[in-house]
Amino acid sequence: MNRGSHVAVDAEPTGATDLLVYLRECRELVAEEIKRILPEDPRFHDVLYRLMLEYPLREGKGLRPALCVATSRAVGGQLETVLRTAAVLELYHNAFLIHDDVEDESWLRRGELTLHREHGLAIAVNVGDAMLALTLQPLLDNVPLIGLGLSLRVLMEIAHMTRCSVEGQALELDWVRRGRFDLDDADYVTMVERKTGWYSFISPVVLGATIAGLKQSRIEELAGFARSLAVAFQIQDDILNLEGDPLQYGKEIGGDLWEGKRTLILLHMMRSASPTQRRRAERILAKARPALAGRVGDATVGHLSRVIDRLCTDGDLTARGRQRLNRALRCSAPAEKTDAEVRYLRQLVDDAGSLDYARRVALRFAEDARRRLADCGRWLVTSAHRDVLEATVGFVIERVQ
Amino acid sequence: MNRGSHVAVDAEPTGATDLLVYLRECRELVAEEIKRILPEDPRFHDVLYRLMLEYPLREGKGLRPALCVATSRAVGGQLETVLRTAAVLELYHNAFLIHDDVEDESWLRRGELTLHREHGLAIAVNVGDAMLALTLQPLLDNVPLIGLGLSLRVLMEIAHMTRCSVEGQALELDWVRRGRFDLDDADYVTMVERKTGWYSFISPVVLGATIAGLKQSRIEELAGFARSLAVAFQIQDDILNLEGDPLQYGKEIGGDLWEGKRTLILLHMMRSASPTQRRRAERILAKARPALAGRVGDATVGHLSRVIDRLCTDGDLTARGRQRLNRALRCSAPAEKTDAEVRYLRQLVDDAGSLDYARRVALRFAEDARRRLADCGRWLVTSAHRDVLEATVGFVIERVQ
Repeated sequence: MNRGSHVAVDAEPTGATDLLVYLRECRELVAEEIKRILPEDPRFHDVLYRLMLEYPLREGKGLRPALCVATSRAVGGQLETVLRTAAVLELYHNAFLIHDDVEDESWLRRGELTLHREHGLAIAVNVGDAMLALTLQPLLDNVPLIGLGLSLRVLMEIAHMTRCSVEGQALELDWVRRGRFDLDDADYVTMVERKTGWYSFISPVVLGATIAGLKQSRIEELAGFARSLAVAFQIQDDILNLEGDPLQYGKEIGGDLWEGKRTLILLHMMRSASPTQRRRAERILAKARPALAGRVGDATVGHLSRVIDRLCTDGDLTARGRQRLNRALRCSAPAEKTDAEVRYLRQLVDDAGSLDYARRVALRFAEDARRRLADCGRWLVTSAHRDVLEATVGFVIERVQ
Repeated sequence: MNRGSHVAVDAEPTGATDLLVYLRECRELVAEEIKRILPEDPRFHDVLYRLMLEYPLREGKGLRPALCVATSRAVGGQLETVLRTAAVLELYHNAFLIHDDVEDESWLRRGELTLHREHGLAIAVNVGDAMLALTLQPLLDNVPLIGLGLSLRVLMEIAHMTRCSVEGQALELDWVRRGRFDLDDADYVTMVERKTGWYSFISPVVLGATIAGLKQSRIEELAGFARSLAVAFQIQDDILNLEGDPLQYGKEIGGDLWEGKRTLILLHMMRSASPTQRRRAERILAKARPALAGRVGDATVGHLSRVIDRLCTDGDLTARGRQRLNRALRCSAPAEKTDAEVRYLRQLVDDAGSLDYARRVALRFAEDARRRLADCGRWLVTSAHRDVLEATVGFVIERVQ
């Protein structure tokens, strides 16, 4: 690696530095490391490895590897020992993004078409799987770098991290599927901590500290900081999703409303709405996104109706069952949300002041993160890397990207 | 584990046994082990873990764990030390099935609706991710069971196995995407060895032998047997896809033609066709099932499937009625290729004798596998487990499921 050009990340701990410079340098180092991680077999370059690099090489924030590197360096670790693990975190992040985009039917990621819109669903799912699959070998390659004991602890943390991510994702998908709104802010925080908090904040910090050999009680103090930071980050993400600058945000504005995501904002709006408004909003949110919905064709209905008739004649279906099935068939074309309906939801959000509410909650979590990090100041020595950790607190709630 | 009821798998090596009994016993042991592997957190049971068990609890062949167990036992290993790794292989297999079904837009898996047709695309992608994610912790739990050195070798083999799987998948998806037909049997074998050969045959055998402490040169001899077995298996799978019994095969008959899969059969047919026929076939095959068309029905089918489930639970619909309804539902899928066009392709396959050709090639690979296993007889002691390995050779090319 060419370390000469990366003054901040590789600097001796001597003072404050600019977070944006640090992020950029980490991005560059990690992009190089990811290229080293990918196998070189030319038979699979064009069909797979090249596609695996598409998201990582689009200009992201690079927050996860930077947090991992900064934490490790701030507690006395070396860049060389943490870089590979930081790159693996970025691989996980991008794998989750690819599959999230498929699951949400999103169109834009980092200002360009999502992978499945560009290369098709099948290739995108497989590229995501490939990124998940190719994280294991580099983590095993940690052994000569950081020793067997630490390598196993890193693997354990990764196992926990990925488990949390899929659990959080499952929870959110289930809420949408079942049309659930009996949720409060604590439910939101639980979901968000698992869905993005672990892999984006807690594990990067824990892994950086673990690799530097920090003792467990202090790792847990840092994890508390990361947890609050994570919630603040996600609330800000939800805010940007509604009122961000499309060019800077890089994703579709309002996508969360189209998808019916249970954000803090939406939950606050539903609590604040009148019963009538709430019922109308629930009806709208139960409708699918246009791309997902589709009417059952007449031929299909006719075909299925005939099958249902035969099942009754043959004694496979009761009269009551037939009634229920026919009703389901008539209602089975899920209605689509319209532009006007999504504008209505947006208006309710404005009327309820839900964005301001979310901003206040994000600020509270950010302040908690700041306080927790300050508490770590008892043993965290002054350094450029500690300054970076401090700067992330302001960054996550002020960012526009 | 209740070992009393599993006479064959846990038997002392004393003689021949019935492969089907052995497979069933392995399936049961592995299903129990998978239940032990899944976390117990009740918050995520209904939304995630229950769904992760859906495919594993449908009646599959259970060939992979059986191969892993039989190999390990045949070279002196214990059931207790290999069972967890065998269960992890089954988790990988089912994760790949879920994502393959999404990628191929398939309707049926093991005689029932595919996971994404039943629960929607988003949930299916996440459940597959969850199964991939939850393989890591049990492999780390191998350490107290088989020691650190062997555990790391198992992890290295798993890393290699998953890499091969996504590479093979990428190759096949690329061929279809680019409409490539400049492929010969050797290309097919390369693709198949990676796509299914490693995770279905080579790694199960290598892992079983590794855990039993077999020396490397002998592991490689067994890997050679597994490699030939894998190719024979996949060719037979391609044959069943075209002329299997729908009730036994459990997947859609002709699905490979609809998807334009580059099977040995299709490549032989294209080589044998006249230039005019070939051009027409290429035009038909270029009409891939458009992702959009497949997805249009998803919400509808998911909704109706849930209604059908409820009718069964409430006693309004018999099991046979459910099967017929699900089949009818499947036929209502919109597709761009027409039935007549796919029938034309099928006719070309018959005219060229491509199925017989494929059967001959499969037999050649099966014979090679048998010869390689016989060569291992120099050091492989006579046992029920060795008999099972021998019996798999006939099984893979004679099976109907």
